[in-house]
Amino acid sequence: MSVRPVRGGITTPRGFRVAAARAGLRSGPGPDLALLVSERGPVPAAATFTKNRLRAAPVELSMRALRTSRGRIAAVVANAGCANAGTGAQGLDDARAVQTLVAEQVGVANRHVFTASTGLIGSRLGVERIASVLPSLRPAAGRRADGEAAHAIMTTDTVPKESAVEVDLGRGRTAHVAGMAKGSGMIHPEMGTMLAFLTTDASIGPGALRDALRATVDRTFNQVTVDGDPSTNDTVLVLASGAEGGAELAGAALHAFEEGLEAVCRSLAEQIAADGEGAQHRIDVSVIGARSDREARLVARTVASSSLVKTAVHGADPNWGRIAAAAGRSGARLDPDRLAVRIGAITVYDGAPLPFDERAASRALRGKVVGIGLDLRLGRGSGMAWGCDLSAEYVAINSEYRT
Amino acid sequence: MSVRPVRGGITTPRGFRVAAARAGLRSGPGPDLALLVSERGPVPAAATFTKNRLRAAPVELSMRALRTSRGRIAAVVANAGCANAGTGAQGLDDARAVQTLVAEQVGVANRHVFTASTGLIGSRLGVERIASVLPSLRPAAGRRADGEAAHAIMTTDTVPKESAVEVDLGRGRTAHVAGMAKGSGMIHPEMGTMLAFLTTDASIGPGALRDALRATVDRTFNQVTVDGDPSTNDTVLVLASGAEGGAELAGAALHAFEEGLEAVCRSLAEQIAADGEGAQHRIDVSVIGARSDREARLVARTVASSSLVKTAVHGADPNWGRIAAAAGRSGARLDPDRLAVRIGAITVYDGAPLPFDERAASRALRGKVVGIGLDLRLGRGSGMAWGCDLSAEYVAINSEYRT
Repeated sequence: MSVRPVRGGITTPRGFRVAAARAGLRSGPGPDLALLVSERGPVPAAATFTKNRLRAAPVELSMRALRTSRGRIAAVVANAGCANAGTGAQGLDDARAVQTLVAEQVGVANRHVFTASTGLIGSRLGVERIASVLPSLRPAAGRRADGEAAHAIMTTDTVPKESAVEVDLGRGRTAHVAGMAKGSGMIHPEMGTMLAFLTTDASIGPGALRDALRATVDRTFNQVTVDGDPSTNDTVLVLASGAEGGAELAGAALHAFEEGLEAVCRSLAEQIAADGEGAQHRIDVSVIGARSDREARLVARTVASSSLVKTAVHGADPNWGRIAAAAGRSGARLDPDRLAVRIGAITVYDGAPLPFDERAASRALRGKVVGIGLDLRLGRGSGMAWGCDLSAEYVAINSEYRT
Repeated sequence: MSVRPVRGGITTPRGFRVAAARAGLRSGPGPDLALLVSERGPVPAAATFTKNRLRAAPVELSMRALRTSRGRIAAVVANAGCANAGTGAQGLDDARAVQTLVAEQVGVANRHVFTASTGLIGSRLGVERIASVLPSLRPAAGRRADGEAAHAIMTTDTVPKESAVEVDLGRGRTAHVAGMAKGSGMIHPEMGTMLAFLTTDASIGPGALRDALRATVDRTFNQVTVDGDPSTNDTVLVLASGAEGGAELAGAALHAFEEGLEAVCRSLAEQIAADGEGAQHRIDVSVIGARSDREARLVARTVASSSLVKTAVHGADPNWGRIAAAAGRSGARLDPDRLAVRIGAITVYDGAPLPFDERAASRALRGKVVGIGLDLRLGRGSGMAWGCDLSAEYVAINSEYRT
């Protein structure tokens, strides 16, 4: 096994330091501003962003930064409490002001500073509050700084989300991949929601990094669904310090790195699904036998996002009709005569309804993690999606008046 | 005005009779089996069906009937309590048995009998119960028979849904369009959900009827969303008796008929949205200024189906960020700098956030019907969608154990 989970966070890979502080952008206690810096100045970076056309100002700015720097980032500044989305030209000016402050502090050009925000849509960013706190930040490496940074990007998350792995690259080389994330899928009220920051000390060029990130995000973060509302701020960024020191990754070593990247992203995706607003169960949907991986992921995500499946899990109702019907509407090719559906370890449908022990199936739905499996028997495509149950608490949380 | 609403139901157009009875397929009191017959034998018919690949047996059978009869239907048999979906080859045999019984009773070939079912997915149809009740049915015209039939196709609907209009075809000709529907969008637990049956006495050929139906369904029933779970049984059928007696519709008269068809479908669509499970508010989303009608409908439907918008309405929270963000992710072209968003009569966003009276906007969200408007200012496309709020009651209803 070339990938091994380790206890760690965003600075487990060598070459990064992080700090967090309270700027007062978010109500409640704790830090709400994080600054991640590369010890070696600008390093290869790749990112994926929300497809929402109401893109937040920091998303616009970071897309530009990556483009003009040709994928070389030296610092990341992220805040909670304000998404700086739907804020027009003023929002872009505000984001740029923060970018400039960080660029001066770190001693790099603006194009090497990546900005990210999460929180209320439509409110102005508190630039002065950020300016008054930034100079006091002392970036450091280590578990404590990692944890504070993971806390600083939380909005209504109930737990911070971190993951780290050690990757055996072969020939005596070892690299690390780590990350922190926030968000409960796309569920949050007026929150511009999902952010994930990943670091690695592997030596890898921007092109290979981008390709690896895109493929991994499609299989992991893009398969998390809480209520199907992609936010205005979704951002996944990976920075590669190259501090492990070898030649640029290729062949088997690159493949090992990709496995490590996927392990970290998958862990963070699972943590996000489990922390879905009002959720009591994480739902893991596994699909095999599809015509392609893409169709398998489509089926998995459609099942995981179905309100009827989510409420059935909430009520521990082994109602396979809802699962099969959701799969049937996904858009992927499906033949009811070949389809098999599994709840936990119990096959409940196999081309036709099967008699099964409803109590045992109901028990399987009461677990902290609920497994649902579908075999389409049409090809070799496979994929997963992660979701959570839909509870009355979700409605209560999201119906509450903003103020 | 060539279209005038009238009090009426499925037999308001001349040439149709209907009857309902209790076969005991559904728990609870009242009729659960309806039979609609054409007085003139097979007449032009057109239908649209669910796109779900887990198609119910009656859907398969009715698609075949329309194909082999070249769009000529003489009788429709519909039941509640059992969707006859996910039932494999046995389900098709059961549906065919009912079709044969009705064909013999009415005196037509099987291909002229249309079958429809709604209710639990995965359970077998009670053919014997239907067989024992069918001979006692005495189809008649009139409000009482109409009402009983509309009741017979209800599952967890709280009210029957009917609509009728009179259409001035010009040159002294008058036709009627009427319909009955069931379903609360696609929200029902394991229910194969939406059915709509439409009748008209206009003289119109199968081709023109099909074209009119498809365009109308796209603008009406396909724009109703309750939880985005298209069912296995969704069916919309229109029958044209030609009893008004004129030449086949063309030109302005055809256009008038299409207006009447749309008025009936729109009324039924609104009734379905208002009866969404656990719903306290109907949400009407109106979009103008899109690049095309198709994109306008896409934006409207995405906003109406957003859990965050639905919970905001439930909580009377004038949270325009959720509306704008849902529009932004619809896939339609959208420019945040041109976008305007309206809640009730209050414009809350116009290229940038506007100051507005939050209390007045909150009041607008407390109405029985909540209006949300978006102007994309990119073109001349317009469209509507109808939805409802998401309540804790929805979760409670759908989390309850099936048995």
